[in-house]
Amino acid sequence: MAIEIRKIAISTGGGDCPGLNAVIRAVVRTANIKYGWEVVGIKDGLQGVMDTTTKLIPLNRHNVAGFLQKGGTVLGTTNRGNPFEIKQEIDGRMQTVDISDAVVENIRREHIDAVVGIGGDGTMLIMNQLYKKGIPIVGVPKTIDNDLLSTDVTFGFDTAVAIATDALDRLQTTAASHHRVMVVELMGRYAGWIALHSGIAGGAEVILIPEIPYNIERVCDVIRQRMKREGFSIVVVAEGAKPVGGSHSVLHEGGQGAVERLGGVAYKVAEEIEHFTGAEVRTTVLGHVQRGGAPTAYDRVLSTRFGVAAADLIHEGNFGRMVTLRGTEICDVTFEEAIENLKFVDPDGQLVRAAEEIGVCLGR
Amino acid sequence: MAIEIRKIAISTGGGDCPGLNAVIRAVVRTANIKYGWEVVGIKDGLQGVMDTTTKLIPLNRHNVAGFLQKGGTVLGTTNRGNPFEIKQEIDGRMQTVDISDAVVENIRREHIDAVVGIGGDGTMLIMNQLYKKGIPIVGVPKTIDNDLLSTDVTFGFDTAVAIATDALDRLQTTAASHHRVMVVELMGRYAGWIALHSGIAGGAEVILIPEIPYNIERVCDVIRQRMKREGFSIVVVAEGAKPVGGSHSVLHEGGQGAVERLGGVAYKVAEEIEHFTGAEVRTTVLGHVQRGGAPTAYDRVLSTRFGVAAADLIHEGNFGRMVTLRGTEICDVTFEEAIENLKFVDPDGQLVRAAEEIGVCLGR
Amino acid sequence: MAIEIRKIAISTGGGDCPGLNAVIRAVVRTANIKYGWEVVGIKDGLQGVMDTTTKLIPLNRHNVAGFLQKGGTVLGTTNRGNPFEIKQEIDGRMQTVDISDAVVENIRREHIDAVVGIGGDGTMLIMNQLYKKGIPIVGVPKTIDNDLLSTDVTFGFDTAVAIATDALDRLQTTAASHHRVMVVELMGRYAGWIALHSGIAGGAEVILIPEIPYNIERVCDVIRQRMKREGFSIVVVAEGAKPVGGSHSVLHEGGQGAVERLGGVAYKVAEEIEHFTGAEVRTTVLGHVQRGGAPTAYDRVLSTRFGVAAADLIHEGNFGRMVTLRGTEICDVTFEEAIENLKFVDPDGQLVRAAEEIGVCLGR
Amino acid sequence: MAIEIRKIAISTGGGDCPGLNAVIRAVVRTANIKYGWEVVGIKDGLQGVMDTTTKLIPLNRHNVAGFLQKGGTVLGTTNRGNPFEIKQEIDGRMQTVDISDAVVENIRREHIDAVVGIGGDGTMLIMNQLYKKGIPIVGVPKTIDNDLLSTDVTFGFDTAVAIATDALDRLQTTAASHHRVMVVELMGRYAGWIALHSGIAGGAEVILIPEIPYNIERVCDVIRQRMKREGFSIVVVAEGAKPVGGSHSVLHEGGQGAVERLGGVAYKVAEEIEHFTGAEVRTTVLGHVQRGGAPTAYDRVLSTRFGVAAADLIHEGNFGRMVTLRGTEICDVTFEEAIENLKFVDPDGQLVRAAEEIGVCLGR
Repeated sequence: MAIEIRKIAISTGGGDCPGLNAVIRAVVRTANIKYGWEVVGIKDGLQGVMDTTTKLIPLNRHNVAGFLQKGGTVLGTTNRGNPFEIKQEIDGRMQTVDISDAVVENIRREHIDAVVGIGGDGTMLIMNQLYKKGIPIVGVPKTIDNDLLSTDVTFGFDTAVAIATDALDRLQTTAASHHRVMVVELMGRYAGWIALHSGIAGGAEVILIPEIPYNIERVCDVIRQRMKREGFSIVVVAEGAKPVGGSHSVLHEGGQGAVERLGGVAYKVAEEIEHFTGAEVRTTVLGHVQRGGAPTAYDRVLSTRFGVAAADLIHEGNFGRMVTLRGTEICDVTFEEAIENLKFVDPDGQLVRAAEEIGVCLGR
Repeated sequence: MAIEIRKIAISTGGGDCPGLNAVIRAVVRTANIKYGWEVVGIKDGLQGVMDTTTKLIPLNRHNVAGFLQKGGTVLGTTNRGNPFEIKQEIDGRMQTVDISDAVVENIRREHIDAVVGIGGDGTMLIMNQLYKKGIPIVGVPKTIDNDLLSTDVTFGFDTAVAIATDALDRLQTTAASHHRVMVVELMGRYAGWIALHSGIAGGAEVILIPEIPYNIERVCDVIRQRMKREGFSIVVVAEGAKPVGGSHSVLHEGGQGAVERLGGVAYKVAEEIEHFTGAEVRTTVLGHVQRGGAPTAYDRVLSTRFGVAAADLIHEGNFGRMVTLRGTEICDVTFEEAIENLKFVDPDGQLVRAAEEIGVCLGR
Repeated sequence: MAIEIRKIAISTGGGDCPGLNAVIRAVVRTANIKYGWEVVGIKDGLQGVMDTTTKLIPLNRHNVAGFLQKGGTVLGTTNRGNPFEIKQEIDGRMQTVDISDAVVENIRREHIDAVVGIGGDGTMLIMNQLYKKGIPIVGVPKTIDNDLLSTDVTFGFDTAVAIATDALDRLQTTAASHHRVMVVELMGRYAGWIALHSGIAGGAEVILIPEIPYNIERVCDVIRQRMKREGFSIVVVAEGAKPVGGSHSVLHEGGQGAVERLGGVAYKVAEEIEHFTGAEVRTTVLGHVQRGGAPTAYDRVLSTRFGVAAADLIHEGNFGRMVTLRGTEICDVTFEEAIENLKFVDPDGQLVRAAEEIGVCLGR
Repeated sequence: MAIEIRKIAISTGGGDCPGLNAVIRAVVRTANIKYGWEVVGIKDGLQGVMDTTTKLIPLNRHNVAGFLQKGGTVLGTTNRGNPFEIKQEIDGRMQTVDISDAVVENIRREHIDAVVGIGGDGTMLIMNQLYKKGIPIVGVPKTIDNDLLSTDVTFGFDTAVAIATDALDRLQTTAASHHRVMVVELMGRYAGWIALHSGIAGGAEVILIPEIPYNIERVCDVIRQRMKREGFSIVVVAEGAKPVGGSHSVLHEGGQGAVERLGGVAYKVAEEIEHFTGAEVRTTVLGHVQRGGAPTAYDRVLSTRFGVAAADLIHEGNFGRMVTLRGTEICDVTFEEAIENLKFVDPDGQLVRAAEEIGVCLGR
């Protein structure tokens, strides 16, 4: 049943993601224009509501102008924790305390009638706990890795894939001219979606993802053949890619430690390929370039639809639910369903099979 | 039941579309690498098979290298007609003749065991007729306008939206600096998907599409308010946008004729806005810029998956079917289902409602 | 001789230009960080100084953050006139009055010790008159058309050429696939630099610029040959391109009037080509897309250097001068030298000859 | 004095560079269209002329179509050496032999009347030696690092700066959202031009280049202040950047070795910043992404002008000279002048001073 709404709040959790500001803009515009609600943004996670003087930012259709194109997040660094287990210094010692009651109280004291929580599975878990404490909350999924089972796509993912693919396009021509192996490290600690999509779109010969432990000998066989035939090779490595058995064959203790502390798995893979094939290898580590800047048109449309749908859920009194995309329609699921399962690349799924049918080596 | 395949052909129909070469590449690679088939491309539509010396192009994994990024179509201009009703000069007069039997015969004479037909609803109709004549055919949908009901998305659409959105982004800053109305004409004669998606992604205030006849007074009201408040306005017009009642209020006979012959509806809308609001208006007609150049990463992945799936259908002996996207899965439908219905923007659908909820004027 | 500076003002004249905000940022940062000056931006031209409550905007290193990438101009619409001949309603009639003394007085009353004026030749003329009235002024050239003789390059030009070239790239593939002539209208009413550079960079076959009246028969000859050989053709037309003799051969009175009122010369050229060659022609009018959005890296570096040099001129007490680029060095000239001559494309110059040597038709 | 020319050859030396194919296209088109000469491309450096069956590629205006946009080099890997000191296996041992006489003889036997040599200072040195042996040669400078004193700019540089700046733009938003230090490694082993231009264009706070040894304490001071004030920081590091004194303070023997073998100086700088400031640091190593893909419009125009000018020099019989850019004009110098001096960033020059005046830290 719908409650009467006059004022809503928006809170975000976790890292930034292209499209995050576009979601905020859509919530604000729908709230203002369609429903006549006031909107306030809470900085630095929901517990920011405790600090009403510095962390509550009035948002309206005018001050969200330009948010469609804007990378980053206007609600600041957002991984500052969980109101149910917040770290505080008490009596000189760091302790974990539950401040959720105070958060709930402050939400009411600020006359916030409903909350839009934007975040990943961790954030949705917290949103669910607060929802059970009586806060009318709806959720918007946010993970650049696209690893939520309850939605076909999350915003930011298309942008990350586009940026990575653009880098692979540039490497294609220079690799061909130089007769080299180019190893490119892309995001993806646990799920290989970015590496798999970018690798297919960018014409990589090898794509190594966390879900399929790679066999370096198999990888080197492919590269050797490819070097003979075309003279160059592109190898995409997700951050979380791991060899079969989980350890690297070439690096000794010292070196490996230094590398792991400093940088990426790409350097390890590059060294192994150089060692086993004798090819000249060059390495690119795109890093946070993948999550910055203006979102693609695709991500802007998706973000806008998610934001509108979240406001609509509030209007309908449909709390405790997260918006999702299924096919071409925006749907919604309960917070429980939202966080039940993560979505990993299926080693036997359609997309991996398609990649292998066109001759891409997944390292196995 | 599967037949034994040794050689397949690829034929395309209709205009070019970003991703078309990527589909061809995926079919060729899957055929070569996975199934060991020979592949031939037929230039200028299926009747090209009649001209075996100039229109049959051997394709293999080596000569399709670089096709992922390549705009246009390597199989040439493809709207040269229909083997069932081909125009030929006979006895000095243009006549319509049915050469489908000869096409079927030539396909067999060339030892082509199966055909992949890539095209829009017109092409699928022809493919279906040839399928019924005994040619083992599978189809891949191709329409930049994304107006096929049997698939969630078609390749090329995402690229067109990305290009149009980039233009809208650039117009935002200059419109704001100059206090102007910018009218932008985008593709879409019958379906407004490109205009609607780009307009939402690019933050347009007004989006006029063929499916919703526009009321110029309503449009001008929105622009007047907007000019007062923000000082500028972006108006997106699909090629096929029409006013309520279907005629334009300002232009006299002479002028209107000249404009219609020469260019776009955007000039008409621009003149009406200038006339009724007094605002300075500038016009951009993107034209074929929207269908050229490298496809987006999204379109490359989709094209690749479609190409692989088409080859797989042939391998399974599953003829008379067209590949589609449903959610995140590649599926397939019969040719009949494929062409049953076009997909127009629903004036009461989710996407239009989302646009209106954030304050976009659809001209009504 | 240097005077003591505590506070400077920045004023802009004319339309927006990619890099304008980057110039402002560089002036502000140099003033703040290097010299410790206060900075104020004057909105809507120098006479904005009369309206101290709404048009003087304090600028500092913090509120110019992000200005490098920002398109448009933060100092608003800037073509509102000339303090020496301002249009005012007096006794119910529009009259031209000279308010320059009041402007000078207000600059002093606001304790503005020096002014950076950014604009084209019109703006520099006004700056010079104010300089002669005793205001310590330095200038930064701003014209997207790159038509000032006193500087090798102006900022914004590289961005406009980059955007236009990107559109030509996309048209190349689609023109080739469709066997069509693509006519593209680019900026340039009096000087053809944008059309000439973009046309060369984008591989156009024909480039029509204001400095070389075109012979439509010559153009059509080139297109006919090209259509026979390659099957497609790209024609670039600057806004100010004119046929030899100055009138168009095909269009009748009515149509021509309508077109001229509404849109561009491209439609006229397109109609003539269609008429004389029978080729299918498609038209793109890029319009203000060319002057919007983020500046290129080249323009950002140039803008930054211009802004720093302007502040340095003030520091050195070197007033009445405009900064310029000569080769790789930033130099400066007097306002008189700055506005003495415009820079048009030389029909016998190196660049035109280079274009013609590679086979580009300049319409003659 | 001009000799009669019927056939010319094009040879490239060193790595690939965006615009290289555009130079080749312009030489070929001018030779074909303007002068009626035949053109042949020599693969893998001038000594490729010895292998007439596999390394001589006929080039003409038709097979160079599309070369304007094409990244890489169509004349293959080009750093295979010097005909005056070529490495050959003789009697089972690698020996250095002078095959220049044979090269000269083969050029004559192939009826090559003149040669266009495209390359860096090393290539020009070889060209000069061959020129002294009587081969009519002209040169085109090629170095992505822009480090030749005899020309204002070399092609490819603008593209590299554009790519790097695009990456910095994306890092700006994500750095701001995450409160992080982003360290980005860019090309430039000996000259810091790419890092300096990109760093200015991308708004970096710190730019470390080979020409100015950096003081890590000074760098960390700047970052500490910046983190306090704005919460994030962008640090650009050229590959060849070195600390004052030349060694790194943090890393022990083992780690340092591993890092140096594997990757870039960026990881060292990142670790030092993390160690000294406690800030969270993320690293991006763009690598060969910077030298791949389509050249910018600027580089295409420059490349085209260089190619035309080289053909013109041959036509005029003006051998032993390399084309250059001075201001807006294409000029030429003798090979001796061309290679006399490299162009390094002047630590007291205009560009470094401009950077420091807007508050950029150059590490000193």
